[in-house]
Amino acid sequence: MDELEIDAVAEADLDDPVLIEGLPGVGHVGKLAADHVLEELEAESTLVRRVYSREFPPQVTIEDGVAELTCAELHAVSVPDGRDLLVLTGDHQAQTNDGHYVLTSAFLDVAEEFGASELYALGGVPTGELIEEYAVLGAVSDESLIEPLEGVGVEFRENEPAGGIVGVSGLLLGLGARRDFEARCLMGETSGYLVDPKSARAVLEVLAEVLGFDLEYESLDERADEMEEVIGKIQEMEQQQQMDVPTDDDLRYIG
Amino acid sequence: MDELEIDAVAEADLDDPVLIEGLPGVGHVGKLAADHVLEELEAESTLVRRVYSREFPPQVTIEDGVAELTCAELHAVSVPDGRDLLVLTGDHQAQTNDGHYVLTSAFLDVAEEFGASELYALGGVPTGELIEEYAVLGAVSDESLIEPLEGVGVEFRENEPAGGIVGVSGLLLGLGARRDFEARCLMGETSGYLVDPKSARAVLEVLAEVLGFDLEYESLDERADEMEEVIGKIQEMEQQQQMDVPTDDDLRYIG
Amino acid sequence: MDELEIDAVAEADLDDPVLIEGLPGVGHVGKLAADHVLEELEAESTLVRRVYSREFPPQVTIEDGVAELTCAELHAVSVPDGRDLLVLTGDHQAQTNDGHYVLTSAFLDVAEEFGASELYALGGVPTGELIEEYAVLGAVSDESLIEPLEGVGVEFRENEPAGGIVGVSGLLLGLGARRDFEARCLMGETSGYLVDPKSARAVLEVLAEVLGFDLEYESLDERADEMEEVIGKIQEMEQQQQMDVPTDDDLRYIG
Amino acid sequence: MDELEIDAVAEADLDDPVLIEGLPGVGHVGKLAADHVLEELEAESTLVRRVYSREFPPQVTIEDGVAELTCAELHAVSVPDGRDLLVLTGDHQAQTNDGHYVLTSAFLDVAEEFGASELYALGGVPTGELIEEYAVLGAVSDESLIEPLEGVGVEFRENEPAGGIVGVSGLLLGLGARRDFEARCLMGETSGYLVDPKSARAVLEVLAEVLGFDLEYESLDERADEMEEVIGKIQEMEQQQQMDVPTDDDLRYIG
Repeated sequence: MDELEIDAVAEADLDDPVLIEGLPGVGHVGKLAADHVLEELEAESTLVRRVYSREFPPQVTIEDGVAELTCAELHAVSVPDGRDLLVLTGDHQAQTNDGHYVLTSAFLDVAEEFGASELYALGGVPTGELIEEYAVLGAVSDESLIEPLEGVGVEFRENEPAGGIVGVSGLLLGLGARRDFEARCLMGETSGYLVDPKSARAVLEVLAEVLGFDLEYESLDERADEMEEVIGKIQEMEQQQQMDVPTDDDLRYIG
Repeated sequence: MDELEIDAVAEADLDDPVLIEGLPGVGHVGKLAADHVLEELEAESTLVRRVYSREFPPQVTIEDGVAELTCAELHAVSVPDGRDLLVLTGDHQAQTNDGHYVLTSAFLDVAEEFGASELYALGGVPTGELIEEYAVLGAVSDESLIEPLEGVGVEFRENEPAGGIVGVSGLLLGLGARRDFEARCLMGETSGYLVDPKSARAVLEVLAEVLGFDLEYESLDERADEMEEVIGKIQEMEQQQQMDVPTDDDLRYIG
Repeated sequence: MDELEIDAVAEADLDDPVLIEGLPGVGHVGKLAADHVLEELEAESTLVRRVYSREFPPQVTIEDGVAELTCAELHAVSVPDGRDLLVLTGDHQAQTNDGHYVLTSAFLDVAEEFGASELYALGGVPTGELIEEYAVLGAVSDESLIEPLEGVGVEFRENEPAGGIVGVSGLLLGLGARRDFEARCLMGETSGYLVDPKSARAVLEVLAEVLGFDLEYESLDERADEMEEVIGKIQEMEQQQQMDVPTDDDLRYIG
Repeated sequence: MDELEIDAVAEADLDDPVLIEGLPGVGHVGKLAADHVLEELEAESTLVRRVYSREFPPQVTIEDGVAELTCAELHAVSVPDGRDLLVLTGDHQAQTNDGHYVLTSAFLDVAEEFGASELYALGGVPTGELIEEYAVLGAVSDESLIEPLEGVGVEFRENEPAGGIVGVSGLLLGLGARRDFEARCLMGETSGYLVDPKSARAVLEVLAEVLGFDLEYESLDERADEMEEVIGKIQEMEQQQQMDVPTDDDLRYIG
């Protein structure tokens, strides 16, 4: 296999589409969001390209006994009454430093082929603690793109995210800018410890408002409820342990 | 040396052969199985190709003082009254992510050169515990290949193996499918802790039935008996330790 | 993106300029020094080249919401009454062995393009302890370059630095020599534990004297004062701990 | 810099020379041996080639303030009354799997250029314990080369070294054989914990007898004496500790 092979699975006629990226990352926020768009708009979606690469892990997934070689997929989505989308999803990121550049360049090639000149990279930004109010942070390829996003509630904070943005989402901004894409990154706050459907919903609500489409969130909310249960059990266990273990105060009375 | 060098050691006239892969992996199941086929059918086997690559470890093995550069070997086997085989063995897998793709592509090149359009990747699937009944799991490149394998006792379980299949065996399915091979993977259950000749026998019994050839298992059973002795000693030591150490129950009576 | 892309941001007419390198390293000495030169001579500086590479981490930094793709920058500086400079700075080194060679070669290409045939790599050399007197060690591409540097106080010690010089600074000497650059490395002694503006000042004082330019050090001294406070607090905490914890001597009186 | 650059430092007219490799490895046996040959035959030696490569660490060594880019060196040696030699030394091995293949191929290219068709890779084989009698093990590219080496005391043991031979020494056998070199590896037994000049002497005594040249060992013996002192001190410290710490036997008398 060549370093990169792009399979044309189908063609689709998109009108000035927006590339939406949701590969695995912090809290799986981007991937949950992109997968949810494809689920909700299944009738309007067509798998158009598969990107295979030696930069992906040498691995197949098995579903019902049938093997699928690791790849990234691009889906054309004709949104009713909204902007057309080109949605990028997959189960893996590149395995090397170099590979992130190679794959991101390939994704931008496909986006250009379908006439896209705007993109949204979706992801999570880790806060290290459980979240009550899910803020969505933004980063953009050009200053002029900030104000419109602030208008729909996206926050731009000084020096955040502190370490910059790494991987495909970061490079879609960086390499996208070099190829004259209007590139934006929407990052839902998330603890960073768990898969976070609530953070994905917060990101999608911003995206839907900006791009003018409607989404149901029922299935995402169900997954969120499941996660809440898991979190509830963890918290219960922690409290249980605190009651069992004598605290420093207890110990003072022993002697 | 080039990244890849394929030495034509001999030629062989095979009729619609099946590629059988048995490189090192979990429990050495695949390698044990492939090596056993070559041992039992030694008279009908010819070493036809050696694959050298910079993707292999920079290493020679020493046998009787003579060095052999790390390589993979393909043997042509004219099975009496059965399908011809092209058996792939070796002592090493590739050392990098990228290398797995490069080598698997090379193996498929050789298979095509000998007219093969079907392949079986042999391996083990770790269960984490000692095994009584050795099931053989399957994975295939196309749904239509499942039923015939189920007919000879191969199990197809939902979401197993959970992590997919990694390395050459996985890529033979994934890249094989992209090159129109009928690709199957047979995985013997194995603890994952020890070299497992019993699991290799379970895999071979399936393979022999599917491809219509006969095998003796004496030498494999002898190795299995040796392993049983090792396991027996480990279990004895564990029991000894359990007797020495006071259990929770014991401790309840102390106070 | 190609492995290497050099953007011509602007042009500048330099007269026999000297390449000054200050990428991140021990104590951030080189980077602090190069950044300080650019700050102090801002009016005389022009960003002329950006070097992008797949050898850098796949990352953007975010400043005021706007993403900048990781790169190295070369600034042309027309020093009043002094030698022209070409100052190389950036936030990252290459991520692989091979990448250090690729990037250093690219930096030398740019230097040659601007007519440079001399270079100074700036950096720190770790001593493992807090420093009172900041010596500056030297290393050069040719023996004839030692004496002039000794004349301005640079020390050349036998077998120091013991492990040689690694990364871009080392290769600027090594590859520079192969391309007939007069290459020098100035290394400020530094503890190696902290960002060290004092060490950067010691290096710059040598550089300014050699190349005949004047620098103010106020902003660097302010950063040094901040670091002194940090060090002061660490020492205080250490002393506090020593008073709390019984020493070996104390323990002798217990029994 | 290209992946590989071979500098022709000087030319030399060698008659059917033998390539001798001594790069760093177990106990530095090979490097000590090759360096000793060059020291003792300094008057007859000419540095003929320097091999630079991006596969070496990105590093310069500093000697008397002057930087030397990491490289491997080949020296032509016209041995009085003996076979001509081409001696390969250096301070580093390649940093990647792939790099070992690239560099070894380059070394064989140079050897062929000088008309060599035989080679000796010198190294150490770790035993895990201090050594009294320094045996020299052998490995060869062809069975016919064993007997002559056994005649001068080289030992060929079944399945040793158990893990094969890794790195340049291994590949000189493996790749050398593929290019029709008569390739031999001489491995001095060594503990594996320390630099071992005695093991290097044992290897050289075999080499000198086979190739018919004379060597003085004074400087090597001096280094061996220094190492003996180090070993002596370590053993003293160990005995001291054994006296201080109560042994199992002591403890039996406590209760």
